[in-house]
Amino acid sequence: MNVSHATVHPVEEFPMTVAGGGGGGDGDDGGGGNPPRLRMKDVQGMPGTPGGLALRVCQFLFAVAAVCVMATTSDFLSVTAFSYLVAAAGLQSCWSLSLAIIDIHALLVRRSLQNYRIVSLFTIGDGMTSTLTFAAACASAGITVLIDNDLGLCGQNHCIEFETATGMAFISWFTALPSFLLNFWSLASR
Amino acid sequence: MNVSHATVHPVEEFPMTVAGGGGGGDGDDGGGGNPPRLRMKDVQGMPGTPGGLALRVCQFLFAVAAVCVMATTSDFLSVTAFSYLVAAAGLQSCWSLSLAIIDIHALLVRRSLQNYRIVSLFTIGDGMTSTLTFAAACASAGITVLIDNDLGLCGQNHCIEFETATGMAFISWFTALPSFLLNFWSLASR
Repeated sequence: MNVSHATVHPVEEFPMTVAGGGGGGDGDDGGGGNPPRLRMKDVQGMPGTPGGLALRVCQFLFAVAAVCVMATTSDFLSVTAFSYLVAAAGLQSCWSLSLAIIDIHALLVRRSLQNYRIVSLFTIGDGMTSTLTFAAACASAGITVLIDNDLGLCGQNHCIEFETATGMAFISWFTALPSFLLNFWSLASR
Repeated sequence: MNVSHATVHPVEEFPMTVAGGGGGGDGDDGGGGNPPRLRMKDVQGMPGTPGGLALRVCQFLFAVAAVCVMATTSDFLSVTAFSYLVAAAGLQSCWSLSLAIIDIHALLVRRSLQNYRIVSLFTIGDGMTSTLTFAAACASAGITVLIDNDLGLCGQNHCIEFETATGMAFISWFTALPSFLLNFWSLASR
């Protein structure tokens, strides 16, 4: 009967520091005796924020568009770089979809994702997938420019589809870059 | 005549914080009342350290090798991606040589380069040149794989030279990446 009295105050203090909502960014080191460097700031674009979710949705949509447009051409399998583009954009779309689901869950239950291990994992994953997507987009762009400008063989090839898929992959990389940089910044500034 | 007495102690304190030598890294927050977050740590690989100078020299040498090997082929100008590789690797070599000279000067006069503006400039420059070098290397790799594996046209082309130049550009990017990441980390963790 005497255990229910003493537990009220520590529970009230604890969620103020660990899970701090999604919205405005700059309200740092609120009240408790904890040092402020243990709590990362929630900048829009980081995991668990509406901006971060928007970036993930853009990455996913453009990566899926790149895969779909490239897959509509019948002869993409005969060129290694185009097959690699499909693989890299597919991986990017899976990664971005997973992180979008995590972001939606974090926003619904109002839980912050600014944990050191989670942010490290997201940074490594973002760095690898965005590098692969960028490499695939550059390789496809090199071949597309070769076919179109240097050789002038667009009559026999699906240049429009190749160029569209390459552009989609570049946009997907361009929206993946802020996620990586913000996560890396957040990791370094803790 | 009475002004020469009070100025001794502030001048002794000042150089301990601003310019702190090149060598060993971990001796932080030495003595004064300044907060330690104003002074960035000298990790090996950052500007003004022997490791940073070694990275710059590697970037420069491999970028110059990529330019030279590609320039020995007679027909690299007919392919846009190969011309772009020469331009991007040339830019990378100029940038890395400039920063190597700055590093040598900083090491000789034992001056730290951990200033916010300098590190911002280096980070932006490293990010742009390494991205351009990586894009050129990926585009060249896509075309080299197309010529060699997909079309089997190595008999009529300089495949060995193209592959060597592409590999040199990749190694140059691979040594430029730590410079960028360390500078970005140093910028975020101040």
